[in-house]
Amino acid sequence: MENLRQLQQVVEPPRQELFRRLNIAPGGTRALIEMRSHVLNELDSHPYLEPIAADLGHLLASWFNSGFLTLERIDWHSSAVVLEKLIAYEAVHQIQGWHDLRRRLEADRRCYAFFHSALPTEPLIFIEVALTRGTSDLIHPLLDPDAPVSDPESADSAIFYSITNCQPGLRGVPLGSSLIKQVVEDLRKSLPHLKTYATLSPIPGFRKWLGQELSKSESFVNHAETRKIQALLEQPESAERSKWPADLRQRLISLCAFYLLHEKRGDKPLDPVARFHLKNGARLERINWMADDSASGIKQSAGIMANYVYELADLQRNHESYTRSGKVLSSARIERLSRQISKS
Amino acid sequence: MENLRQLQQVVEPPRQELFRRLNIAPGGTRALIEMRSHVLNELDSHPYLEPIAADLGHLLASWFNSGFLTLERIDWHSSAVVLEKLIAYEAVHQIQGWHDLRRRLEADRRCYAFFHSALPTEPLIFIEVALTRGTSDLIHPLLDPDAPVSDPESADSAIFYSITNCQPGLRGVPLGSSLIKQVVEDLRKSLPHLKTYATLSPIPGFRKWLGQELSKSESFVNHAETRKIQALLEQPESAERSKWPADLRQRLISLCAFYLLHEKRGDKPLDPVARFHLKNGARLERINWMADDSASGIKQSAGIMANYVYELADLQRNHESYTRSGKVLSSARIERLSRQISKS
Amino acid sequence: MENLRQLQQVVEPPRQELFRRLNIAPGGTRALIEMRSHVLNELDSHPYLEPIAADLGHLLASWFNSGFLTLERIDWHSSAVVLEKLIAYEAVHQIQGWHDLRRRLEADRRCYAFFHSALPTEPLIFIEVALTRGTSDLIHPLLDPDAPVSDPESADSAIFYSITNCQPGLRGVPLGSSLIKQVVEDLRKSLPHLKTYATLSPIPGFRKWLGQELSKSESFVNHAETRKIQALLEQPESAERSKWPADLRQRLISLCAFYLLHEKRGDKPLDPVARFHLKNGARLERINWMADDSASGIKQSAGIMANYVYELADLQRNHESYTRSGKVLSSARIERLSRQISKS
Amino acid sequence: MENLRQLQQVVEPPRQELFRRLNIAPGGTRALIEMRSHVLNELDSHPYLEPIAADLGHLLASWFNSGFLTLERIDWHSSAVVLEKLIAYEAVHQIQGWHDLRRRLEADRRCYAFFHSALPTEPLIFIEVALTRGTSDLIHPLLDPDAPVSDPESADSAIFYSITNCQPGLRGVPLGSSLIKQVVEDLRKSLPHLKTYATLSPIPGFRKWLGQELSKSESFVNHAETRKIQALLEQPESAERSKWPADLRQRLISLCAFYLLHEKRGDKPLDPVARFHLKNGARLERINWMADDSASGIKQSAGIMANYVYELADLQRNHESYTRSGKVLSSARIERLSRQISKS
Repeated sequence: MENLRQLQQVVEPPRQELFRRLNIAPGGTRALIEMRSHVLNELDSHPYLEPIAADLGHLLASWFNSGFLTLERIDWHSSAVVLEKLIAYEAVHQIQGWHDLRRRLEADRRCYAFFHSALPTEPLIFIEVALTRGTSDLIHPLLDPDAPVSDPESADSAIFYSITNCQPGLRGVPLGSSLIKQVVEDLRKSLPHLKTYATLSPIPGFRKWLGQELSKSESFVNHAETRKIQALLEQPESAERSKWPADLRQRLISLCAFYLLHEKRGDKPLDPVARFHLKNGARLERINWMADDSASGIKQSAGIMANYVYELADLQRNHESYTRSGKVLSSARIERLSRQISKS
Repeated sequence: MENLRQLQQVVEPPRQELFRRLNIAPGGTRALIEMRSHVLNELDSHPYLEPIAADLGHLLASWFNSGFLTLERIDWHSSAVVLEKLIAYEAVHQIQGWHDLRRRLEADRRCYAFFHSALPTEPLIFIEVALTRGTSDLIHPLLDPDAPVSDPESADSAIFYSITNCQPGLRGVPLGSSLIKQVVEDLRKSLPHLKTYATLSPIPGFRKWLGQELSKSESFVNHAETRKIQALLEQPESAERSKWPADLRQRLISLCAFYLLHEKRGDKPLDPVARFHLKNGARLERINWMADDSASGIKQSAGIMANYVYELADLQRNHESYTRSGKVLSSARIERLSRQISKS
Repeated sequence: MENLRQLQQVVEPPRQELFRRLNIAPGGTRALIEMRSHVLNELDSHPYLEPIAADLGHLLASWFNSGFLTLERIDWHSSAVVLEKLIAYEAVHQIQGWHDLRRRLEADRRCYAFFHSALPTEPLIFIEVALTRGTSDLIHPLLDPDAPVSDPESADSAIFYSITNCQPGLRGVPLGSSLIKQVVEDLRKSLPHLKTYATLSPIPGFRKWLGQELSKSESFVNHAETRKIQALLEQPESAERSKWPADLRQRLISLCAFYLLHEKRGDKPLDPVARFHLKNGARLERINWMADDSASGIKQSAGIMANYVYELADLQRNHESYTRSGKVLSSARIERLSRQISKS
Repeated sequence: MENLRQLQQVVEPPRQELFRRLNIAPGGTRALIEMRSHVLNELDSHPYLEPIAADLGHLLASWFNSGFLTLERIDWHSSAVVLEKLIAYEAVHQIQGWHDLRRRLEADRRCYAFFHSALPTEPLIFIEVALTRGTSDLIHPLLDPDAPVSDPESADSAIFYSITNCQPGLRGVPLGSSLIKQVVEDLRKSLPHLKTYATLSPIPGFRKWLGQELSKSESFVNHAETRKIQALLEQPESAERSKWPADLRQRLISLCAFYLLHEKRGDKPLDPVARFHLKNGARLERINWMADDSASGIKQSAGIMANYVYELADLQRNHESYTRSGKVLSSARIERLSRQISKS
């Protein structure tokens, strides 16, 4: 035992102690986060910096343990210092200035962020929620800055449509899972009539995977289909939902279901967003045709988006089952769709 | 390098990760602090708990890095939840209820504490300061709950007369040094006419050391003196300053100077309070005869107390010189006193 | 019209303008409240001060309009500056120091006060509430500083057991009615399982009235009864509930019912506490034998106390009916009791 | 005395009591302010509403006594709810959106507002201040949203360049004078190196008065000058400082000095901005040629602006002398300028 302890002390890098002392200075925490951000940026060209990145990451993960973070609701009463950071950081669906931001903080929207006492005006991660009737299958209406404001009391669903990590220096520090769970908890208390908590999420790896499939000789898609799909995906007008023949559209949805359920990296799904929500204990509920018909939506996932559903009562069990086996929990409908795909 | 990293991961006790997960739960931080407090209490009878105490200590020292602590001034406007804890925790000079507490928070007193965001109503350590004219050489007037309140603008000295660690579970986590420095900084800004920042400190190891000296055959004190000193120290009336013949009194003060300057543990002073202030970069300035004539004052240090002076400009240099050599920085007068002592 | 306006300007006392200017100075509002307090104290000996008292009262009533007051819950997290004022001001059931105060702010108690932004640490009026199972008919258990704390979630009743005006300079400025209504509203939201909102109130004029009745030749009480009642009321042991023969006890309760329902000043009840609660729209619900067996309780009302019930839905209608006719709204039981009394 | 009191009660309009009751309802204060705003708007077409406007004004002036207002500094940390109101309300120098606003809240600017506890997110009046080296004689650099930010510690002057009343319903309620004095006081404490507190103010009545003078047969300006001045004032290029011949420029400045010092309404200056600052106790210090060369600046005052200086030590004496005699306190230079004007 005593030997183990000595061994631990010998191998603990002295730079950890250095970092802890730097942290005592005013602004020290912020400086360390920025230092890690710089180091991570330089890793490719200077791989010998990796231990520094790792030590800083280890320390920051310990310090930014979610037990030390405060959930705060952000609305139009918040400080402009904080609000302008939402505009700057939002990565999933960009905020087009103050007018757009204001709409995202109206009565039928919610925005929450985690803060740490050492950086009181600096959101670490934030999530944007729309209160709707029914589960949204289109992203555009949620983002329209001029959409009429609806009564939050009449909503039955909370749609998580964007989640953004703000600090590159905290990459790899797990924040999102705790954030979503605490937000669901808070919404449940403040809006007890909500029935569904779901995301409207991108499928960032789908189009890339599809491209590879379409170019393979032995593929899930036959040659005729391949040509038609490729042609449509390259036309700007393809974004119009109705432009797609029903069979191709059906085909793409099935391919997407297959991608999400069966394409893996190790024993976990290939799609990073799927990995995140499934690990949190959510369930893949629905795949929505042309839910994001923006240029980037078409480019990323052929316009398709997914709803993952968070049911508080099931999160823990789902999380454990996913962690153990990597099985993608999904609705019967998506399972059916995925079964329509087989190597041709 | 890679091997070292793997070694670090192998030897990091998995219980550290367990503690980090426990911390996520509501109240987790407090529970971990209490857990360490229990474990420390059980160490004597269950020495195999030592690694747990050490791991918890390592984690808590990292989390309670003073960069994460907030200095707050406590006064009569503070919450009763916090104030009652001062009464409960004060260890150096007990607070006799709300009337006594109120006096210690009047206009000519200051009280500061460190807080951590995970325990918002829980002072971790606090310090009590009296604003006086001249450097106090008597503790009683500072503690009198019915003493008249003087004008803080007329004070030229800030006397730190008590510093109390509140959380047994944070034993060994360094808090005091940062606290004193930040308090000096804050006082300097808010009361720019202050000239002296000094403590009025107990000398907890003096009487025990003296007892050992008095009982040695070869000692700093001759037999005749020994008997007289012993006799006086055992009489309750000895607390009256005037009861002591000038020569004995002088003798005791010199012995105390010698004790503080030359009695060491390793290369650092034997007296724990001296170690604390000297390591912070303070200077031993004055030794005060019968400064604490209470029963416990007599018992601990024959009623003698010390003033350590904090000079902001010198703290860093003093700290480094002390850390390197263990030399006790003191006034010329105290050095002279200590030179009067030699083995008889 | 124009003439009326000129008349108004001519008759408005210039001292109102003077007071408005004094109010601009720092601490001005507090000084004006204290000025009125002094003036009211001097009125008996200096009746010519009456117009000054009236002008100040007019101004203060306008400034302390309850639309400008903030309802704040006071608990053990509140500032000691505020808490010590509760101890100082509580007039109905004195608070015996900090230990007693702490019990009155525990989980099964509520305390609310009105504050004005010009006097941020100065409660203007406060009310103390006990959360109980069933409507309390005894005051002592509510005041016991060592009573065990019960779970507020298990309570079905909120008992208003004390309401105290703190500022003599605001005498006559109506604060109590708004306070009770806002407190009922707040409790209803935060503790939705509460069913009953009632007071446990003194009957300050009963014993005096009774004394007059007992000494009249033609009275509601016959000679034999009179002697027995007088004898018992003068014995210290009378405070023991069981010491009273059932018939006398019944007799006193009926007399009290008669006093509350039928003794008037103008068309309103003689009893000032009854006037206050009935004007607010409450209903006289129950008369409780020996509910306050303290010396002052016996002296004031032969130990009897009353429950007035506040039902939010009825307050407005009751208030209007009372204001119009002065009719005392009471339970059928109290009406029956009062009918047992007739001039002998 | 008693008769007077009865007379006062008889003539007090019952609607004052009605307003006081309306104020008790949630949002009551705001509703009353809006009611007065509407009534004031309708006065021209419905003059019989005047007593209502007057009664509301009387009440609001009493309630919004500056002793009840809180001075708050507004900066980029303030709530967006408040900040967007600055953009909406600013009347003197319009704010062109969030980018412009942010510049006006940078380190070398200050913005203060009065708030009332009944309208916590509603600024009642606000003032914008630039911290500069020397007293500004040009408005444009102070308003440039892309001007570099200078170090506030290097500034020696605080220039009040805009003051805006936000609530039309509070028209006539004196707010500005207290605001300026409290702001000077606050700046003096937080930036002790400031030496000058001055405005850079419009002269709203000058061009109108000048127009009348130019068209009179017997005037301060001879015919030749008149034609040249008129011609230049009507050309858009006139805004270029250098376009004016020295003699005409000098002439206009002297005319402006004469206008400010000697043109009166009753015994007070004709110019409303002059009346405001002189009544506050400020001194007319300097007249600046083409200080505001915007279209509206040319139109209002031929581009000329004035500096009024606030010296804390003199404000009270100046105010009293002005109130008594209406004398315009000004620098010797301005007096000299004004003496160059005489009826031709």
